[in-house]
Amino acid sequence: MEIFIEPIGRLVNEFSKLPGVGKKTAQRYAYKIIDMPENEARAFVDAILGVKRRVKYCKICGNFTEEETCSLCKTRDKSVICVVKEPKDVAAIEKLHEFKGVYHVLHGVIDPLSGIGPNDIRIRELLSRLHEGEVKEVIVATNPDVSGDATAMYIAKLIKPLEIPVTRLAHGIPIGSEIEYTDDVTLARAFVERTKL
Amino acid sequence: MEIFIEPIGRLVNEFSKLPGVGKKTAQRYAYKIIDMPENEARAFVDAILGVKRRVKYCKICGNFTEEETCSLCKTRDKSVICVVKEPKDVAAIEKLHEFKGVYHVLHGVIDPLSGIGPNDIRIRELLSRLHEGEVKEVIVATNPDVSGDATAMYIAKLIKPLEIPVTRLAHGIPIGSEIEYTDDVTLARAFVERTKL
Repeated sequence: MEIFIEPIGRLVNEFSKLPGVGKKTAQRYAYKIIDMPENEARAFVDAILGVKRRVKYCKICGNFTEEETCSLCKTRDKSVICVVKEPKDVAAIEKLHEFKGVYHVLHGVIDPLSGIGPNDIRIRELLSRLHEGEVKEVIVATNPDVSGDATAMYIAKLIKPLEIPVTRLAHGIPIGSEIEYTDDVTLARAFVERTKL
Repeated sequence: MEIFIEPIGRLVNEFSKLPGVGKKTAQRYAYKIIDMPENEARAFVDAILGVKRRVKYCKICGNFTEEETCSLCKTRDKSVICVVKEPKDVAAIEKLHEFKGVYHVLHGVIDPLSGIGPNDIRIRELLSRLHEGEVKEVIVATNPDVSGDATAMYIAKLIKPLEIPVTRLAHGIPIGSEIEYTDDVTLARAFVERTKL
């Protein structure tokens, strides 16, 4: 027997498609929508449609933008490019207000098991940016996992002939955590990449 | 500085209005919407609009329905009415497949601190259903908290002159839990309401 009437069941089903949302949570969200005043529900719908209609990818860096090129590409120091996997990584780094350069979003990483090769991500676009000659450093900020590291190595190798320094983010013990509770791989890496005091 | 472009910021803001959703989770949901194919996003929007357009309240019991009266009121044993606070309580009880009677959704409980009195919830509607004379038992299934209990007592008092038995759900130690970890109030209640072996 169906516990929900059809429109509610359908909305629960749609909410279940969001990451980490199970049936129970989807129900809570659906009840909230039912309880919302008409204009609030309308605002919700408009926000979804607005994102689908207005969000595009910057033709230079691949980050989210509403225009042809994003505001970061327009205003920032073009001599340093930070290479990331996804637009959300840009948001995470921007939150720091530390990095003053521009980005290059790969929209994926090399992952042979999933059939994703170098030509399936925006590596070619990165190279043509480098050939323009302005760039003095490429910082590779892919995730510290197998495919993230492999992609970083691949990019470093490609860039080598251009004689532009390629760096990647430091790995090690997170600030504020304890050595005792640091996982083995991270701890081993922290030893290998120890720095001079 | 705004990290997100306007349409994304707006969608994150809308998702943050869902119960239990913080900024971080709202971001994950927004990214998922951005990544969705156009038709999936459209289905999402349609499900929200569908709920707002099609979900009404049953004019008898107050539960969700697409028609004038809900399918439960049309098909179930009308001699037992289970009184609940909200439509979602109906869904929780229906999941058991135990209760065969009909429901009455109060759409709230008496809560003087929030300015909600007996006339603000569907108590009058309950009484007029009882006056029709078919009902042999009223089970009050409001939540076991202050306002839920107060509402149950109030309803029981109102019904008394009609000589219809009023019961409420048993309180006690949850099945499968341990006495040691049962909270004091529940444990005390379990003593008071102990049953004969």
